[in-house]
Amino acid sequence: MSTPTAVDIPTLLEISPEGGIEGRSRRYEKFLGDMSGVYRDEQAWRDAAAARGADALVYWVDDQRYQEGPGALIVGTSTLLPGRYGEEFAVTRGHLHAVADRAELYYCLSGRGVMLLETVDGQESAIELTPGKAVNVPGHWIHRSVNVGDEPFVTLFSYAADAGQDYALIADAGGMKNLVVADGDGWALKPNPDHAGYRS
Amino acid sequence: MSTPTAVDIPTLLEISPEGGIEGRSRRYEKFLGDMSGVYRDEQAWRDAAAARGADALVYWVDDQRYQEGPGALIVGTSTLLPGRYGEEFAVTRGHLHAVADRAELYYCLSGRGVMLLETVDGQESAIELTPGKAVNVPGHWIHRSVNVGDEPFVTLFSYAADAGQDYALIADAGGMKNLVVADGDGWALKPNPDHAGYRS
Repeated sequence: MSTPTAVDIPTLLEISPEGGIEGRSRRYEKFLGDMSGVYRDEQAWRDAAAARGADALVYWVDDQRYQEGPGALIVGTSTLLPGRYGEEFAVTRGHLHAVADRAELYYCLSGRGVMLLETVDGQESAIELTPGKAVNVPGHWIHRSVNVGDEPFVTLFSYAADAGQDYALIADAGGMKNLVVADGDGWALKPNPDHAGYRS
Repeated sequence: MSTPTAVDIPTLLEISPEGGIEGRSRRYEKFLGDMSGVYRDEQAWRDAAAARGADALVYWVDDQRYQEGPGALIVGTSTLLPGRYGEEFAVTRGHLHAVADRAELYYCLSGRGVMLLETVDGQESAIELTPGKAVNVPGHWIHRSVNVGDEPFVTLFSYAADAGQDYALIADAGGMKNLVVADGDGWALKPNPDHAGYRS
């Protein structure tokens, strides 16, 4: 076997339990104003944006990737701030991988959250994550992080660099099939009446 | 897009900072007697085997994988017990992925170790890992864990399920190019005079 002329040079990554990677390739941030159409209670989202500003940070992601190689992995942290919009807890936009069979590891570093999972043909799951818990999200599962706690929900993730993300699928369906809503001191799943089914 | 008839069902993984996964698919263990030919100081290894027994545990791995899908990931923990064989610190066998371009994430959960990295054409690296530190091992890098501390060195790992492992490459080369040896209270790299170059 031969090594390609150029290989990536391994680098140290220092991962904070609060999220963030020293050695990252990039950081991106999502603000309250970016979350239009994500929550079912549109008025609650508008009220939050009016109170906190459209430029209030809601989640941020650091990731690291190399330049070369079809077998490359992207490694990152996701930090989702706590929040409530009506009865719904704060969520990420969620996605299916553009190459739908690509899996993704999420390992919880801090906080308390739920990995909300659905397939386009109607299968569903929801897995609560606290520090030390993880889910190896199989291919073909749409997934979204939900913060059901009072602190930032932070995960370490890893997925194939060729996976890509389809973010439109959820919006096109009127949202995910299930909402994660407050239920006493905890959370519960509630069917989303606006969900019209995923395109297939 | 359509979902395959059978998709894997996501499961919760509970990962111990001491290594081990509740929800694993399998566990495998390596014993002192399995490490013949790994350490340059053969006599030191023989003495250790005589003193502690060939069935003394030296490292163990839990991993989890699903049944389906070319884009699947394997997630696991590696727990490498501390030890010294002559001047060399305790190591895992080390490998290059059989599909050489496949990357692998290692995230340190506990202990103090080194990820020793080499390419078949002579590039080399060594990255010290303590809790919260990680390395996204790029494709085409032979890699081995080394415990340079006094406690178990535990990492969480993730790699493509189709990657496979070539364990013979290192043995065929007379060992890795570099040894990780004791140096005062720390560690240093030392060229391995038995290393004859990797087949290419």
